[in-house]
Amino acid sequence: MVKKVYGIGVGVGDKELLTLKAMNVLEKVNTVFVPISKEGKKSIALEIVKDYINGKKIIELLFPMTKDKEILKKYWNEATEKIMNEDGEVAVLTLGDPTLYSTFSYVWNLLKDNGVEVEIINGISSPFAAAGRLNIPLVEGDEKLCILPQGKDLERYLDEFDTIVVMKTTNLEEKLKELNDKKDKYLIGIVKKATFEDEKIAFGKIDEIDFDEFRDYLSIAIIKKVK
Amino acid sequence: MVKKVYGIGVGVGDKELLTLKAMNVLEKVNTVFVPISKEGKKSIALEIVKDYINGKKIIELLFPMTKDKEILKKYWNEATEKIMNEDGEVAVLTLGDPTLYSTFSYVWNLLKDNGVEVEIINGISSPFAAAGRLNIPLVEGDEKLCILPQGKDLERYLDEFDTIVVMKTTNLEEKLKELNDKKDKYLIGIVKKATFEDEKIAFGKIDEIDFDEFRDYLSIAIIKKVK
Repeated sequence: MVKKVYGIGVGVGDKELLTLKAMNVLEKVNTVFVPISKEGKKSIALEIVKDYINGKKIIELLFPMTKDKEILKKYWNEATEKIMNEDGEVAVLTLGDPTLYSTFSYVWNLLKDNGVEVEIINGISSPFAAAGRLNIPLVEGDEKLCILPQGKDLERYLDEFDTIVVMKTTNLEEKLKELNDKKDKYLIGIVKKATFEDEKIAFGKIDEIDFDEFRDYLSIAIIKKVK
Repeated sequence: MVKKVYGIGVGVGDKELLTLKAMNVLEKVNTVFVPISKEGKKSIALEIVKDYINGKKIIELLFPMTKDKEILKKYWNEATEKIMNEDGEVAVLTLGDPTLYSTFSYVWNLLKDNGVEVEIINGISSPFAAAGRLNIPLVEGDEKLCILPQGKDLERYLDEFDTIVVMKTTNLEEKLKELNDKKDKYLIGIVKKATFEDEKIAFGKIDEIDFDEFRDYLSIAIIKKVK
């Protein structure tokens, strides 16, 4: 039975964003669990760490892209069982940081429910990488920040928060177009696949952004009020 | 004159949370600027990277702990001038991540205004380190997160956000006590100096926390609604 599980955030696309701690933990574990979204599809998280896990046992965990909670629960349970059946100390990889919208969090909760020791190794998460690539601070001084998945309740917070991060920007254009004559009050920075080789960046007023280029699962928008 | 400035997030207390990228950049620059809050006081950021900057020129940047914007501006301008007068490529260290409430952000803006090239090297920031140490996810699925410095407008967002991060918890107890009979609706995780050797952690309902132990500049609270 498993002794300890390290939940490792491997950061975003740039392999160098891995922490020394992640590298050192990967060196000492025997088994590395890697998330995939489809059978036969490459794990992005595995690509990032592959230089540091020579000779390790690699086990894939399937987390399909669906919003159906019942289906997902089945896969989370399966993944948890696989991890618990492994011996010794193991690592489970996740893109970004394990504490922020990671698929690992569901397995993490199940492992804790089963009394398994979990240690989190933080990683660089995409909103920070996106702000870095846009060359703008997210927040300064006493500014307020919120993070809204899929821009949930965006209209309610646009005037209250100095900075809004939207994770997954698929419907963002439609939400922002509804602002009509208030549109010029905001600046949008938008980044697809921050720090990956095929990264794409835009920054400007709402009407200046070609949102079609950013309809991607790994896109992040940063919305700021014009000062 | 300076050619390029790397704004490097060195993470929080645990030295191993440094990224490989930060380490590699520190290796190639000639000069490393380190923030201090008082003349003669040790730089925490310098402590974290000191094993990687043997033989480098170290220059201190003084950012005193005051809220007086006019005084601060004087020091930001002085720091920017010092950086611009250095030759070649230089690094400026900051605790946590440069994009999230970093002192570096003011200097960063001034450098950009002066046409200096800046590249951001992200670091692990304290809310993530705190969640990791508390062994709880910050947000999952479609949950909403906000970050409020000093708990600004906390009462307005307590019921709207799944998770609220409070940076600097000095007045948090007073704000939370006002909730009276609603107090048991929330769980608080609170971490002083996450991942430092003298880290302190508590988790529970509001009445169970000894807030006096967490009146510290580097304390973070994570507030969640009881599900």
